[in-house]
Amino acid sequence: MTDVAAIRAAARRARGIRRTPLLEAPGLDRLAGRRVLVKAECLQVTGSFKARGAWAAISALSETDRRRGVLAYSSGNHAQGIAWAAAAHGAPAVIVMPSDAPAVKIDGTKAYGADVVLYDRGRDDRDALGAGLAAERGLTLVPPFDHAQVIAGQGTVGLEIARQAAEAGVARADVLVCCGGGGLSAGVALALEADAPGLRVRTAEPAGFDDMARSLAEGERLSNAATTGSICDAILTPRPGALTFPVLQRLAGPGLAVSDAEAMAAVAVAFRHLHIVLEPGGAVALAAALFRRDAIAGDAVICVASGGNVATETFARAISENMP
Amino acid sequence: MTDVAAIRAAARRARGIRRTPLLEAPGLDRLAGRRVLVKAECLQVTGSFKARGAWAAISALSETDRRRGVLAYSSGNHAQGIAWAAAAHGAPAVIVMPSDAPAVKIDGTKAYGADVVLYDRGRDDRDALGAGLAAERGLTLVPPFDHAQVIAGQGTVGLEIARQAAEAGVARADVLVCCGGGGLSAGVALALEADAPGLRVRTAEPAGFDDMARSLAEGERLSNAATTGSICDAILTPRPGALTFPVLQRLAGPGLAVSDAEAMAAVAVAFRHLHIVLEPGGAVALAAALFRRDAIAGDAVICVASGGNVATETFARAISENMP
Repeated sequence: MTDVAAIRAAARRARGIRRTPLLEAPGLDRLAGRRVLVKAECLQVTGSFKARGAWAAISALSETDRRRGVLAYSSGNHAQGIAWAAAAHGAPAVIVMPSDAPAVKIDGTKAYGADVVLYDRGRDDRDALGAGLAAERGLTLVPPFDHAQVIAGQGTVGLEIARQAAEAGVARADVLVCCGGGGLSAGVALALEADAPGLRVRTAEPAGFDDMARSLAEGERLSNAATTGSICDAILTPRPGALTFPVLQRLAGPGLAVSDAEAMAAVAVAFRHLHIVLEPGGAVALAAALFRRDAIAGDAVICVASGGNVATETFARAISENMP
Repeated sequence: MTDVAAIRAAARRARGIRRTPLLEAPGLDRLAGRRVLVKAECLQVTGSFKARGAWAAISALSETDRRRGVLAYSSGNHAQGIAWAAAAHGAPAVIVMPSDAPAVKIDGTKAYGADVVLYDRGRDDRDALGAGLAAERGLTLVPPFDHAQVIAGQGTVGLEIARQAAEAGVARADVLVCCGGGGLSAGVALALEADAPGLRVRTAEPAGFDDMARSLAEGERLSNAATTGSICDAILTPRPGALTFPVLQRLAGPGLAVSDAEAMAAVAVAFRHLHIVLEPGGAVALAAALFRRDAIAGDAVICVASGGNVATETFARAISENMP
């Protein structure tokens, strides 16, 4: 089980990881009806928080395992995180990616020097494919969220939020986190439990793919009906993780969900007011702050903007269709 | 005259100012043929470095002068900086803006609570207009660059670069700075002279509006033929400042200039690789790193990305016309 000691250890090992800023803008506060603080993980190395978990997992491997290499399956951001962290550790990396992943993410992964293996998201079982490749080549599988070191690495976001929120004078607030399998949400929740108990994680998901919100409400892990069909490709996962769910069941508030249109509008708001580039899946937490105001209490809300690896056409559409 | 002591004093007063990150990305290094470090002042409060000089100038006023209020003339970023810093100090602000300034900047200035007075950039003399308003209402004029406290405030960017470059292991490099009247360039040059003597400022300007580059080459202050006609609206100024020019004459290397198309391409590169939003005028330093490689020496180059207050249509065009 991941605990805050593992998160602190991951933070001490995280040489290559950037401490991202917690951004604010008066215009954004006006739109959201309360103070909004945005943890800009789109500015993280590789363009998303996934670099943190990847670094934590690979830096925890034995020298022998690192030399053999790592394998990851991912729609894109975990892929880039693993490819980058593996290269930084001198480890070979094989990445299994869905063939419908945005080209920008496939190209980004290849650019870090990884071998990319594509699969059909509707037809193939990526877990079985990944496990097979790992066995065959002696690679260590680093899953995208349900892994103690990955959760520990993502939790370093929470350590930073705790310190930055205190500096900003925010002691009590909901912390909205873009949620796929729950690795980031669980890691942040564990860090905040230790360092900022007045801050509470709440997951934000695409409507129709809100498995975590429904699972939290029902008290058991429920699956999504599909894993395609939203523009928020970064956070479409089949079901909450076996490791992440119990953490969030204990620590998180009720989950939130937003439409694709709301995620796209949040991309435009972040462009205009914060001057950062978000992908739709990385903007769902900000979208929840903007469009689920009544479901949030308090004078301030913190949002994790989890990634910015967006197709040019998608971003151009988001800002053009949501002019102020 | 501004000196590093004034810059350090401005940094100590700069409560409301954000320490912006120095960003890097492997893909950007590949494009530029050397290591590139980008000081992301688009993430500064108000979306540009201008908040720094504004804060420095207003925080240095007497209580009486602050109560009477301040006046600024600006195409947009200085306007927003002054409007924001004045509001934070409880000072009234009147801003004289050209009528052809981007709507996003005029609206942004009004949103901070300032009174906006528009003028015709081709017909009116903004200096005379500003001086008249200041005399009439007892306002203190805060000019956009040729002012000791404004230069001191902008110089705090240089103090941060000195520290961040040292952390990144960069001791010798050119520091490319987007240059209008030279306030940011001069302030950064003074800070680097004291704290990082291996780092040298070089101005970056739009081609055809490279008054600073020509003035540095000729050894005297030369004017631009026009102050409109480039998409880099943020940095179109008539001539180098009387205070800024001697500083740059002493400390800066040869000036660089880039075309509008190169500035737009740099906007797209920053979008794709750094996940930040730049305006064309805020991207000319990065454009110089990308498109004037042979005019730059060394393994690393530092670029100041000075602002991100860009019209939606301009940004959508920049990224759509410069797909990877």
